[in-house]
Amino acid sequence: MSKPRRAALHRVPMRHPGDTAAIEALFESGALNPAAIVAILGKTEGNGCVNDFTRAYAVQSLSLMLVRRIGAAAAERVALVMSGGTEGGLSPHFLVLAVEPGEAPNPAGALAIGTGFTRDFAPEEIGRPPQAEAVAEAVRAAMAEAGIADPAQVHYVQVKCPLLTTERMAAAQARGATVATEDTYASMGLSRGASALGVALALGEVAAVPAAAIGRDWSLHSGVASASAGVELERCEVIVLGNSTDWDGDLAIAHDVMGDTIDLPAVHRALRAAGLPTEDGQVPEASAVRLVAVLAKAEPSSFGQIRGQRHIMWDDSDINATRHARALVGGVIAGAVGRTDIFVSGGAEHQGPDGGGPVAVIARRAPG
Amino acid sequence: MSKPRRAALHRVPMRHPGDTAAIEALFESGALNPAAIVAILGKTEGNGCVNDFTRAYAVQSLSLMLVRRIGAAAAERVALVMSGGTEGGLSPHFLVLAVEPGEAPNPAGALAIGTGFTRDFAPEEIGRPPQAEAVAEAVRAAMAEAGIADPAQVHYVQVKCPLLTTERMAAAQARGATVATEDTYASMGLSRGASALGVALALGEVAAVPAAAIGRDWSLHSGVASASAGVELERCEVIVLGNSTDWDGDLAIAHDVMGDTIDLPAVHRALRAAGLPTEDGQVPEASAVRLVAVLAKAEPSSFGQIRGQRHIMWDDSDINATRHARALVGGVIAGAVGRTDIFVSGGAEHQGPDGGGPVAVIARRAPG
Amino acid sequence: MSKPRRAALHRVPMRHPGDTAAIEALFESGALNPAAIVAILGKTEGNGCVNDFTRAYAVQSLSLMLVRRIGAAAAERVALVMSGGTEGGLSPHFLVLAVEPGEAPNPAGALAIGTGFTRDFAPEEIGRPPQAEAVAEAVRAAMAEAGIADPAQVHYVQVKCPLLTTERMAAAQARGATVATEDTYASMGLSRGASALGVALALGEVAAVPAAAIGRDWSLHSGVASASAGVELERCEVIVLGNSTDWDGDLAIAHDVMGDTIDLPAVHRALRAAGLPTEDGQVPEASAVRLVAVLAKAEPSSFGQIRGQRHIMWDDSDINATRHARALVGGVIAGAVGRTDIFVSGGAEHQGPDGGGPVAVIARRAPG
Amino acid sequence: MSKPRRAALHRVPMRHPGDTAAIEALFESGALNPAAIVAILGKTEGNGCVNDFTRAYAVQSLSLMLVRRIGAAAAERVALVMSGGTEGGLSPHFLVLAVEPGEAPNPAGALAIGTGFTRDFAPEEIGRPPQAEAVAEAVRAAMAEAGIADPAQVHYVQVKCPLLTTERMAAAQARGATVATEDTYASMGLSRGASALGVALALGEVAAVPAAAIGRDWSLHSGVASASAGVELERCEVIVLGNSTDWDGDLAIAHDVMGDTIDLPAVHRALRAAGLPTEDGQVPEASAVRLVAVLAKAEPSSFGQIRGQRHIMWDDSDINATRHARALVGGVIAGAVGRTDIFVSGGAEHQGPDGGGPVAVIARRAPG
Repeated sequence: MSKPRRAALHRVPMRHPGDTAAIEALFESGALNPAAIVAILGKTEGNGCVNDFTRAYAVQSLSLMLVRRIGAAAAERVALVMSGGTEGGLSPHFLVLAVEPGEAPNPAGALAIGTGFTRDFAPEEIGRPPQAEAVAEAVRAAMAEAGIADPAQVHYVQVKCPLLTTERMAAAQARGATVATEDTYASMGLSRGASALGVALALGEVAAVPAAAIGRDWSLHSGVASASAGVELERCEVIVLGNSTDWDGDLAIAHDVMGDTIDLPAVHRALRAAGLPTEDGQVPEASAVRLVAVLAKAEPSSFGQIRGQRHIMWDDSDINATRHARALVGGVIAGAVGRTDIFVSGGAEHQGPDGGGPVAVIARRAPG
Repeated sequence: MSKPRRAALHRVPMRHPGDTAAIEALFESGALNPAAIVAILGKTEGNGCVNDFTRAYAVQSLSLMLVRRIGAAAAERVALVMSGGTEGGLSPHFLVLAVEPGEAPNPAGALAIGTGFTRDFAPEEIGRPPQAEAVAEAVRAAMAEAGIADPAQVHYVQVKCPLLTTERMAAAQARGATVATEDTYASMGLSRGASALGVALALGEVAAVPAAAIGRDWSLHSGVASASAGVELERCEVIVLGNSTDWDGDLAIAHDVMGDTIDLPAVHRALRAAGLPTEDGQVPEASAVRLVAVLAKAEPSSFGQIRGQRHIMWDDSDINATRHARALVGGVIAGAVGRTDIFVSGGAEHQGPDGGGPVAVIARRAPG
Repeated sequence: MSKPRRAALHRVPMRHPGDTAAIEALFESGALNPAAIVAILGKTEGNGCVNDFTRAYAVQSLSLMLVRRIGAAAAERVALVMSGGTEGGLSPHFLVLAVEPGEAPNPAGALAIGTGFTRDFAPEEIGRPPQAEAVAEAVRAAMAEAGIADPAQVHYVQVKCPLLTTERMAAAQARGATVATEDTYASMGLSRGASALGVALALGEVAAVPAAAIGRDWSLHSGVASASAGVELERCEVIVLGNSTDWDGDLAIAHDVMGDTIDLPAVHRALRAAGLPTEDGQVPEASAVRLVAVLAKAEPSSFGQIRGQRHIMWDDSDINATRHARALVGGVIAGAVGRTDIFVSGGAEHQGPDGGGPVAVIARRAPG
Repeated sequence: MSKPRRAALHRVPMRHPGDTAAIEALFESGALNPAAIVAILGKTEGNGCVNDFTRAYAVQSLSLMLVRRIGAAAAERVALVMSGGTEGGLSPHFLVLAVEPGEAPNPAGALAIGTGFTRDFAPEEIGRPPQAEAVAEAVRAAMAEAGIADPAQVHYVQVKCPLLTTERMAAAQARGATVATEDTYASMGLSRGASALGVALALGEVAAVPAAAIGRDWSLHSGVASASAGVELERCEVIVLGNSTDWDGDLAIAHDVMGDTIDLPAVHRALRAAGLPTEDGQVPEASAVRLVAVLAKAEPSSFGQIRGQRHIMWDDSDINATRHARALVGGVIAGAVGRTDIFVSGGAEHQGPDGGGPVAVIARRAPG
């Protein structure tokens, strides 16, 4: 029988969006083999909105570094997912995911990583059921690759998805096809939404994805999906994180769903499920060393309130609503974990309920 | 022997900075006698910085309403303290403090309110030891008025203080006097700082206020002071909130000091001291009805980090640092209390340690 | 025969949105009779967008002052039109319009002012042809009141118009009526657009206002309309400014239409038509004393370009597009007139062509 | 006798800060030999302030492209000067400066380019007279290289200068040296100011640079300097642009000094000196084709006014003052030239008078 795999996750700071030095230090110290990297998630300090170039800058810097280290072909295979916006106290950082050879499967279960890809989409498919269905298929493939059969063992699914550009819309229209929206920015939300519903479909969280529900019926959602749209791809890329008894290692992942932006109890449940205790609401230092990563989605409620009280996120013409939401959710989670390098991203269409979102915790199991 | 007093505190929403309807509804329903009001604190939805006119707009609107209800002379005596900035999920609201006739003193102690005033300051005194010393005296007077002898029973001291305007600086300089700073904006910080150190002096938190420490030596600070500077006054106005066995009522106040912006355990300690339990980090609904108000200070650490991790608050040229800080602290506290109408204000010079700040909780005692 | 009227226009600075002192100084000096005021336009230093409370604060301050000076009933009849946003170098100021008794009609023509009002609109009429038609009727009434028969003598029409609130939408829907949009913010643009097309209809700039054109077909527009939407009214209020040989005085108004945001030649043509020369592109000091007011509309082109070059106004998630546009148009006009207290307002739907807008100049005629 | 040189300047748009395609298209078309490039100036769409990463992203992208085209050593010699901020209508673009072999000297004078470098500075020299003196020497060297003897023939001097980082300050302090400021951000202004005064010294605009004047006495300034500070260098790099009868080509440069942000006549004088006429204030299309580049500095006046009227740039806590100033000056100049790809940069310490700044125009001479 073949050796099991072992998933590694390194969380390192960046001094600016072009700074890959902390990742390279992992190579120098021997802590990480660059060839083992499968994905890098980055929380960069831009505005997380339309004109946030910190994401592209970080991607270019990471690509250059990877090409130098492992060559262009291998670098090409590493998924780079940047999320802009470190409002409030959020601290810019990278999460580096790697798959290494393990020794023996962990019978208690260990973090498992699988990746999947859809075909390239026609512009008229984006933000519509065909996208969701293709994502569902890619999630199933990623689960298979990760050796996870039970949807309950999937705790986080990152999807990178395309958007509609003016060119792509024109191409579709030239063929007589109609697109889901003629607004480029709106297409990002629809694409994220369709992707999230695809995850929900694969995991049985929804039974079907009707066209009319995408971007409208927020009661349909996934509790583990995290989608981000980018102009640089025409297909969807899927990263599944879950637990598997086939994998080696002492990392485990758990998640819960925040019902709204201030749902600290959901964060506590996710921490507890990942084996992390709290004291006076916060993971104490002795246990905090075992916390490896927190990933969450933030979104202002569409109805303008949090538990019946008005929020001003949609009405503030100086600070974008998603920036308020990241600051807020970042504060709620930082209070619970006692640190600020948390991967909180915005744009949570169909990713958790309206105004809420999934929160996943990856932690090292407590020794014996 | 005379009847004891009873302190009341009403927390009501505002739909915009000029909206006093929810306060007036308290009058209509008989819940509040307008003549009993001693102070109104407001959290308005401006930027909380230089060009935040929501504060002046709210003050004008409240004054108009009070003059209509209780006449100009009585309205004049109500302290109006507006704090701008409802970043993240903070919800705009008013806290209305009133002193009413009570029935019998509460032997367990009840919320007590006292007010005090300094003389008008010469411009050259602002931001310097004479201001601090005069504030200390006013705090002692306010404590006496409230019937609180023990500094340990003082849990929140609001100070409204003056700032240096160009005119005031010129007047001082014409007399040959020098002022603490020639920068109007900087004078706000120095005036808040001197005020806070005055509170600390009165309560024995510091032994003396050396000129060189104001605005520099952040190790000197008060754990209960909350100061805000305004152009409309030349003296300091002090409101002391504490517990006294001379007062009637079932309200009680407690406080703690957040060591940094993400110090959720300090919030938990304050909640517990005020008789409020938490479950999974948050006050459960059954107890939350007893929570009346939370008042806290937020400030980015001057050294650019939170527990060793970089924050970007000082480097963000699009969102003012204090706006980030209010969003963050608002998130930490909202997570603990499960609501967002929390009075989080910025500008915390000498109000708690560098990067941290006081948090006070006012709650109704549990029955029985 | 009755005495002719004389229109007066005073331009005064404000130190903050609540500062009416410069207007009151006009009363004290005898330069202006408060009872003669018909309208006050204000350029306030808010963000000019959703959460700009400087407009309401200025309105409240002006109202208080007017009630104190001329009584509630007379104050009620003064139109107060506030436009937020003094980006770039724009300087906060008020334009006070008054109608006083004159001596003899000016055969060369003099500034004439007329006002008109529509009925209150049903919610389902807002942003639709019935609103435009009612505005057209009110414009004709205002022209009649001003004694202007020739549409070519109308150079500026200010319209204050209502918007759809959640309550108004609900009321309409309860009756089975549909509204033009369910988005409150979008309703402001539709109401401004319908108002501007109403002006165009009255002046013969368009032959009809088809429902499908409102908010869509920017080729239909008025070269003199300036509309602003406010929550405080349910009808439209119209102020017509033109020239009439029935009026006394040495003020005259002219206008032109900027084809895009950098159309300085259009500004020059308007200045020339108002009798103001330029040297090296700018009105020289000797003539500048005769310049009384400049009123203009600013809007980013919907197609993202200025003369073929990309602008970033729509893509900037930190500064609202209308803020960029006001700063830009303010700069173009300030360069021409050598001053910065210019009334540049945003939201130019159907007010000038896509990306452009009307510019009106009011000046004192050169002596002799 | 050796062949004369010919200076070329290409102005090309960028679609985003990482987009070098328009420059590469010049290579493909044969319009530009990449090996001839001496400098690339870029106007990128960031906020132009502390956390503007569009500059570093553009530099990284340009470097990658140049290395690919001309090799690392040659790429290293190209000066890359990025200025962030395209507020108002400013359009992101690159200005590519090249020196090519010419045919015959132009007796009327042609654009000439020279470059110079100082030694690396000790931290304690930055923002102080030694920096200014070294810059003066480098300017003289650059003039010599360009073959310009007469300071009156120098019309634009770009200086890239270092700043004080925390590390550099610590190094100086460890040696017992004091630095000009302990505030990193303030050091940028002092370094720019000292650089500008160095230019002024070289050109005889000032007789000396007293230490006390740097960053304080704005009456001392250069009418042609444009300085920008960057963390990536420890010396100053100087690019001198002027006219020389030793050079070939039909390009010529002229400049003037804007006395304040709305000094359109100064822009007109510069245009006229460069051979460009205006009609109704704007260069007409037929002449506009000869306009190659406009370079200007923008800065809010320190005294808060423009020609006696208040500006709100310093008081706006939502939009940085330099962003307002660039939008305004961009508007004034765009009105004059009828285009928006203008190189307007902020941070104008000692570059023109307080609130004003130099404006340079490069144009093709009119045929015959």
